Amino acid sequence: MSAIRSPRSDIRPEAAQAAAAQTKGTAYTKLAGVTAAADVIVTVVSDDAAMERIFAERGDSLLEGAKGKIFVNCATVTPAMHIEVQRRAEARGAHSLEACMASSITQARNGTLYLMVGGRRQVFERVQPMFAKMSASLRYIGEAGRAAQVKALVNMVMNINTAALAEGLGLGEAVGLDLTMLRDVFAQTGAHSRVLETDGEDMQNHEHEVYFSAEHAAKDSGIALGLAHEHDLNLPLAQATFDQYERMKALGLGQLDKSGVSELTFKNRSSA
Amino acid sequence: MSAIRSPRSDIRPEAAQAAAAQTKGTAYTKLAGVTAAADVIVTVVSDDAAMERIFAERGDSLLEGAKGKIFVNCATVTPAMHIEVQRRAEARGAHSLEACMASSITQARNGTLYLMVGGRRQVFERVQPMFAKMSASLRYIGEAGRAAQVKALVNMVMNINTAALAEGLGLGEAVGLDLTMLRDVFAQTGAHSRVLETDGEDMQNHEHEVYFSAEHAAKDSGIALGLAHEHDLNLPLAQATFDQYERMKALGLGQLDKSGVSELTFKNRSSA
Repeated sequence: MSAIRSPRSDIRPEAAQAAAAQTKGTAYTKLAGVTAAADVIVTVVSDDAAMERIFAERGDSLLEGAKGKIFVNCATVTPAMHIEVQRRAEARGAHSLEACMASSITQARNGTLYLMVGGRRQVFERVQPMFAKMSASLRYIGEAGRAAQVKALVNMVMNINTAALAEGLGLGEAVGLDLTMLRDVFAQTGAHSRVLETDGEDMQNHEHEVYFSAEHAAKDSGIALGLAHEHDLNLPLAQATFDQYERMKALGLGQLDKSGVSELTFKNRSSA
Repeated sequence: MSAIRSPRSDIRPEAAQAAAAQTKGTAYTKLAGVTAAADVIVTVVSDDAAMERIFAERGDSLLEGAKGKIFVNCATVTPAMHIEVQRRAEARGAHSLEACMASSITQARNGTLYLMVGGRRQVFERVQPMFAKMSASLRYIGEAGRAAQVKALVNMVMNINTAALAEGLGLGEAVGLDLTMLRDVFAQTGAHSRVLETDGEDMQNHEHEVYFSAEHAAKDSGIALGLAHEHDLNLPLAQATFDQYERMKALGLGQLDKSGVSELTFKNRSSA
């Protein structure tokens, strides 16, 4: 049985109801209801603002009556937010971990996620049996914020490689090359990448059913750029990629899959 | 036996002499000597300017006495230059092919190159037995210029992925992550790429022994950007990568391997 509440149940209560129906769980209308109903509370929200809201220090909050509970936060948010949530949880006698997922919807459904965990090691060890059921690969990275740093870097590099592939295929199309041949050559040479496998054919076919949205790609590249800024690092490729995903959002393409960045490069196909 | 001439024998005659000694060949002082000595003449030069020089229409040139000869040009130069060399060769009753190598020195020495060939198919078929000895993988791409287009795209994407990896590892170091762990996570997630395998450890160890120089990376990204310009395509990541490799040249790092782009990102290690 599971306790489910959409943090935006005011906006989309039907989503919480549907998930509850699917899992034979209960859809709560208050966050505190979820905390009361479970020992381990798994959260996946959109961004720092949503984390701030569900772990609010006042008003309806997962922190209400949280003593002894363990929060497992899977959203890709800033490392600083995970550290802050841990601070708030511990102030209430609760625990929190970040469990960053480096995979997508299919893996989540099948319990074959690649999970990177940050937080107190002894808390990690308590939750390990549950993590084992959620993941095919499980890795304790370090203290709070560390897994989120790694996740931000993974997605930053993935997003750059995705935008790179889009440029390669877009230029290939423009000069009149056969893109199936071109992808095949890329796969056998220094141009190969994981995103070539996951996104290359979708780019060629203009199929951008969302697994990981352009909007989320922009957010995650933005988190990495924030870290770079804190450390006075200039990352021109991460910046150019962030700009591309922001451009998608501005063009109303933010809900496409990240592969949709090719629509900015493929000639005569862009909404620009 | 081989006929060898360095197109810069005026600058580095010792290179031609050394290669001749290694291969029991002859180092010629004139280009026409090479053409006279062989039926198939393989060239690998730096750039369009060098191609222009060895296939000059006047003065000492490989084209002198070239009737019936086959030129196999392996340099990564513009597609337009390959088309022009074919035109010049055919005007003298000779033939030319582009044989673009998507691999490096080790593969060339071992005869295990990845070769992409452009030019007349019937000429390709005549030289195929020789190509078979040079390569582990051989692919006829299309008419003159086509293989060079593919090669430019391969290197453009490879160079972007390389600069992306440098940013990921550079930021990882700045925030204090263990880079061996980080490379391992990259390898298992959407951040994976061929250049992670070839260049990741070198970046971490600041070892940039040259296989493919930053200077050549700049040149090849520049060729791709030239194609993009011809087709009115804006490629912000290819441009940012070109700028990074140009920056390496400006800092006197152009002779490092392309992996040396990490020196621009790793904090406190840059010459900037």
